Amino acid sequence: MTDGSRGRLIALEGIDGCGKSTQAQMLAIRLGALLTFEPGATTLGRSLRHLLLDPDLPPLTERAEALLMAADRAQHVAEEVGPTLETGRWVVTDRFSGSTLAYQGYGRGMDVSELGRLVAWATGGLRPDLTVLIDVPVALAKGRLAGGRDDRFEALGTPFFERVADGFRRLATGDPETWVVVDGIGDIDGIAKIVWAAVRERLGERAGG
Amino acid sequence: MTDGSRGRLIALEGIDGCGKSTQAQMLAIRLGALLTFEPGATTLGRSLRHLLLDPDLPPLTERAEALLMAADRAQHVAEEVGPTLETGRWVVTDRFSGSTLAYQGYGRGMDVSELGRLVAWATGGLRPDLTVLIDVPVALAKGRLAGGRDDRFEALGTPFFERVADGFRRLATGDPETWVVVDGIGDIDGIAKIVWAAVRERLGERAGG
Repeated sequence: MTDGSRGRLIALEGIDGCGKSTQAQMLAIRLGALLTFEPGATTLGRSLRHLLLDPDLPPLTERAEALLMAADRAQHVAEEVGPTLETGRWVVTDRFSGSTLAYQGYGRGMDVSELGRLVAWATGGLRPDLTVLIDVPVALAKGRLAGGRDDRFEALGTPFFERVADGFRRLATGDPETWVVVDGIGDIDGIAKIVWAAVRERLGERAGG
Repeated sequence: MTDGSRGRLIALEGIDGCGKSTQAQMLAIRLGALLTFEPGATTLGRSLRHLLLDPDLPPLTERAEALLMAADRAQHVAEEVGPTLETGRWVVTDRFSGSTLAYQGYGRGMDVSELGRLVAWATGGLRPDLTVLIDVPVALAKGRLAGGRDDRFEALGTPFFERVADGFRRLATGDPETWVVVDGIGDIDGIAKIVWAAVRERLGERAGG
């Protein structure tokens, strides 16, 4: 991955509690890739993450929420993801554009194609080479999150998360070239093997390390 | 203005130091209108204003800056401007969509039509019934600002502000139906009279109070 060509971008997506953060970490280690996440990976992003998630702050309108997510992504791409890919290193991100389409689009009910244009503008057209959806039943994901205090999204309840989970599946079905769905029920190492096999199959030998 | 119809939205625009804040205040008092401003009129906006203007924070990418301005405007419209107009009351705002087109578009060099689409989405299509550009030479505006510490925009220097001032003039020229240019050189009361005459002429007798 130091042959001078551009690195690959892999996004892990799914609802809160699906296990994607663990899988993103394991995948990044195996690839020697930069591990990053949204929202909140940059200095700006940390402030925005607080505004987006803190349940004690006044509610955001839907459009403001989507625009803040897009601002976080624009800064993330320009400051971290893009420059890393330019060096030839691979990047694994815990959430990317798919989350905006699934949460603000299918979850909140905003127009998905309008959000698609917003996201494309924010990223300057950067799309993941592969998006891995870790798909689990909402009840299972909710159970994994039990304990801590809910952030704004976690507090939205099961019907919201059913719409988001269904939205992720639709995004994957609609773009099978760059999305792959991995069943997130089961043990972590077993899921990691399936994720790894999918990355090898889709992105080829260069993912072999 | 309590006849049940929707209120009118008047935006005051111009470069920093042009005198538009004073004129916005005088006009709002005369109209009995809500006086507001961008960025920063809502709780969310106050946080965003800090992120946008504080010269001690790390620099924002151009797209993130435009998206934060749009997020501020989306929240402002949904929380304050829109509901006020719905009651029939008029609103005078110190900056609105024109500032994004002038500062991020003509000033920063971003694509103005792309920004126009972003702004239209953020506002849900709300446009001012009248935008008043207070036009002054950059040197005069700069002189008025001397003294305090520059925020991020004020620190950008004369060539930037020349592009912004020229951008505002182009916006006004390109949309003479809803923009009016007022010469901002001269005494405050004299300018206020010209602004008032323009509002009466463009928005008619309902502006008479």
